[in-house]
Amino acid sequence: MAADPTYSAQKRNPTILPQTTSDDDDGGPRGRHLPKGRHGDRKFGNIRITILCGFVTVLVLRGTIGLSNLVSFEADAESQYLIEETNRIVTAIRSDDDPPDPDDENSPNSTSAFNLGPKIKNWDQDKKLWRRRNPQFPYFINGRPKTYLVTSSSPSPCENSIGDHYLLKFLKNKIDYCRIHGIELVYNTAHLDKEMSGHWGKLLQIRQLMVAHPEAEWIWWMDSDALFTDMVFEIPFHRYRSSNLIIHGYPDMLFNEKSWIALNTGSFLLRNSQWSLDLLDVWAQMGPRGRPREEAGKILTSSLKGRPALEADDQSALIYLLISQRERWMNMVSIESSYCLHGFWESLVDRYKEMMEKYRPGFGDERWPFVTHFVGCRTCASNGDYPVERCLKSMEMAYNFADNQVLNLYGFRHRGLVSTNIKRIRNESVTPVVNVDKFGIRNSLRGNKG
Amino acid sequence: MAADPTYSAQKRNPTILPQTTSDDDDGGPRGRHLPKGRHGDRKFGNIRITILCGFVTVLVLRGTIGLSNLVSFEADAESQYLIEETNRIVTAIRSDDDPPDPDDENSPNSTSAFNLGPKIKNWDQDKKLWRRRNPQFPYFINGRPKTYLVTSSSPSPCENSIGDHYLLKFLKNKIDYCRIHGIELVYNTAHLDKEMSGHWGKLLQIRQLMVAHPEAEWIWWMDSDALFTDMVFEIPFHRYRSSNLIIHGYPDMLFNEKSWIALNTGSFLLRNSQWSLDLLDVWAQMGPRGRPREEAGKILTSSLKGRPALEADDQSALIYLLISQRERWMNMVSIESSYCLHGFWESLVDRYKEMMEKYRPGFGDERWPFVTHFVGCRTCASNGDYPVERCLKSMEMAYNFADNQVLNLYGFRHRGLVSTNIKRIRNESVTPVVNVDKFGIRNSLRGNKG
Repeated sequence: MAADPTYSAQKRNPTILPQTTSDDDDGGPRGRHLPKGRHGDRKFGNIRITILCGFVTVLVLRGTIGLSNLVSFEADAESQYLIEETNRIVTAIRSDDDPPDPDDENSPNSTSAFNLGPKIKNWDQDKKLWRRRNPQFPYFINGRPKTYLVTSSSPSPCENSIGDHYLLKFLKNKIDYCRIHGIELVYNTAHLDKEMSGHWGKLLQIRQLMVAHPEAEWIWWMDSDALFTDMVFEIPFHRYRSSNLIIHGYPDMLFNEKSWIALNTGSFLLRNSQWSLDLLDVWAQMGPRGRPREEAGKILTSSLKGRPALEADDQSALIYLLISQRERWMNMVSIESSYCLHGFWESLVDRYKEMMEKYRPGFGDERWPFVTHFVGCRTCASNGDYPVERCLKSMEMAYNFADNQVLNLYGFRHRGLVSTNIKRIRNESVTPVVNVDKFGIRNSLRGNKG
Repeated sequence: MAADPTYSAQKRNPTILPQTTSDDDDGGPRGRHLPKGRHGDRKFGNIRITILCGFVTVLVLRGTIGLSNLVSFEADAESQYLIEETNRIVTAIRSDDDPPDPDDENSPNSTSAFNLGPKIKNWDQDKKLWRRRNPQFPYFINGRPKTYLVTSSSPSPCENSIGDHYLLKFLKNKIDYCRIHGIELVYNTAHLDKEMSGHWGKLLQIRQLMVAHPEAEWIWWMDSDALFTDMVFEIPFHRYRSSNLIIHGYPDMLFNEKSWIALNTGSFLLRNSQWSLDLLDVWAQMGPRGRPREEAGKILTSSLKGRPALEADDQSALIYLLISQRERWMNMVSIESSYCLHGFWESLVDRYKEMMEKYRPGFGDERWPFVTHFVGCRTCASNGDYPVERCLKSMEMAYNFADNQVLNLYGFRHRGLVSTNIKRIRNESVTPVVNVDKFGIRNSLRGNKG
C-alpha cells in the first residue's frame, strides 16, 4: 500500500501493511477517550507538536499555505473549522497510546497479517436467516430500525479528575436520548486490541457489535465528548434506505479539495451489513500502531490537502479511502450537513440562549443542534487545546441545555444554563396523564398509533 | 404523629409533622449519592457519631445491649450485618444535606403542609385508560412487565476525585444489565426537592417516574453504589402478582424483633399503582429536613430495636411504617431474601473467585449474587467507613466480575478480577451467529419464541 496511494491494489485483496514488533513506537495517536496511563517517550511527539502548532498559527494568521481552495467558505467559519479539526487531530496524537501489554495474546492471529477478525463473507445472508429464526428480536420497531449507539472511554480514571465527572454527565445524556428514542446503548471501557489503539479502537468495537447483534440494523458510533442537544430530533432514516454509511461532512471538500477535514468520524452510523464489514476491513489497514500507522500517515499527508505530517488517524484514513475508492463505496455513503450529526461546540454554546428564545427542539440543525461535540477540550486528559474553564463552563451549559428538554416532562428545568439547581416550571396535576400526552417527547413522536 | 407512635391516626389522613423555617438544621442525613458541597456546622453531628461509634464498638464486642434477640442468627454474619447497617446509616447522617437554595420556590405548595405532590386518587383507573389509548407503549413485553430502573447521584463533582470514576463504571454496569433485560434506565442528577434531601429524595424520584410513565409497571430504585453482579438472573416477577413492593429483608427481624435493619431500601421495586403512591405519601411524612426529620428520628429510635439516636432515615421510616400499619400494607409486600436483591459487598467480594470456579451466573443468591452493594464505602465523599484501598479494590473486582459476563458474548474476559486489561477467550468465527445463539444472555433467556 505504501507504493500505491490510490488503493487500487486493495480493491479485492487488501494489502497488509508492513508489521513491526520493535519497541520504537513513538506513542502514536491517542484516542481522546482512551488517554492516560503510562506516558512513553514524548520527545519526538513534542517536536512534532511544536511544528504542528507553528503550522496552525500560520494557518490562523491566514498564510497562503494551502488556503486558496478554501476561500469559498465564509472566512471566520473556515478558520474556525480548520482550527477545530487540526486541534482535534493534534490532541489525539499528543495523548498516549494504550500501554502495550507484555503478556498480550490478544489475538490468535497476532503472528499473521493484521485484520479486524476472520474474513466474514456471507453476513447479509446469515443475518437474514438469524432474524427469521429470532422474531422476538425485531430489527424494526415502531417504524424505526433497531439501532445500537456505542461510545467508549478508558477503563482507568481520567488524568484530570474533573474528566470522569463529565464522562458521567455525558453518559447520562446519552442514556436519556436512547431511552426516549428506543436506541440500545453500549458503553465500552475495554481495550479490545492493542494494535488498533486510540481512536482506531472504534472500528473493532463497531465490528464486534455488528456480528454479536444481528438484530441491529445500524451501529452508531459517538465520541464520549459529544452529547445530544436536541432531544426531539431523530435521524431521518427514510432518507438512507440505499445507504450504508451516514456521516457528517461536505462533499465538495471531500472530492474537489480532498481536504483532510472533509468528514467527521466523531459521530457516524454504519448499517449492519457485509458492505460495512468490508469497509471496516479496508479502513483498518492504516490503523495498526507503529510502522503501519506512520507509513500510512505519510500517504495521507501527501494526498490530503492541509494535512500536517502526522501518523494516520481514522478520520483521514476514511476520507482517503472514499476518495481513492470512490466507485466502490460512494454510492452507499450519505454525507450529511443538513443537520448537526456532529456540531462543533465553539460555534454553538454561546448561542444556546438565543436558540431557547427563538426556536424549539426538533430542528437538529444550527437553530437547535442535534449533537454538540467538544472537540479539543479533552477534559479527561490534562492537555486540552482550550482553556479549561471555558470548556467546563461550555460543557455544563450544553448538558443543562439538553437536560432541560428531559426535565420538561417532569415539570422542571435548570435555573440557568450554568446552574446545577433546578426549579419547578408547572404545577403538578392530580391527573398527571395529561402532562404525559402534552410534554412526553416519545408521545409527540409516536402519536396515537397502534 | 409525634403523639401517636402507632400511626393509627394517619391511616386515612396523614398528620402533617410540625414544620420549621428556622436555620437550626444540624445537617441531617445525607444521601450517599447526594453528598458534598458546603459543609454546615458538624459539631453536633460529630458528637452523635462519637456516641454511635462507641455503641457500635460495644455491639461488636458482643455486649449484652439488645443482642439477646439476635442470637438466632449465625454469630459472625449477625455482627457483620449489624455493623453494615449501622455504618450505612451513620455515614448517611455524617454527609451533608443539599445546600439550601436561597431563592427556592421549588414547590408551589411551599407555604402549606408538606406533601410529595397533589393528592392523586384515581391513578389505577387513569393509568389503565392511558394504556388502552397508547398501545404503542406496551406495559408487558416478551412476558416481562415494563420496568424503569432509577438511580441517582449529585449534579456536582465528587469530593473524592475517584468517586466519579466509579459512579461512571457502576452506571455502565447498569446500562449493560438494563440493555440485556429490556429495562428502561433513568439516571437522575437533580435535587428535586430541598425538603426531601439526601436519601429521602428517592421517594419523589419514584413518584415522578410513576406518573410520567404510565406504561411502567414497576419502578426499581437502586443506589448508585450498588451494581449488578449476576447478569443472567432476572427478578421472578411471576412470584409478585399480588405484590406492590418487593424489598430485601427478613420478616422475623421486622415483626418479631422490630429491628431497625430488617429491610434494605438500597434496592427495591414498587409497582406503579395507587397503592404505591399512597405508600410514598405516608412514608414521606418522616422525611422533610429539619425538625420533622429530627422528631421522627426520636420516634424511630424509641420504637425500633438497636436504632441509635439519629434523625429519621428512609429505611427506618419504612420499617416503622410496615410494622405500625401492618394490616394496611403488608398483604401487598414481598420481603425477599432468597436472592440478593441487595448483597452486602464485604461478605461477597472475596468469594468471587470461588464462585467462578464452582458456580455460574443465574443463581442470583449467595452462590452468584444478583446485586453487590457497596454500603459504607462512599467513594464519592471522603468519609467512608472502610479503608479506601479496600473499597476501591473490591469495587474494581465486582465491576470486572460483572463485566466478564457481558464481554463473554464478544469473546473476551478480564485478565484478572483486579485487571482493567482484557484478553480474548475464543477465536472468532466466520459465521458469528453461532456465537450469538450460544453466548448471548438474552438469547438464552428468551429462547426461540415468537
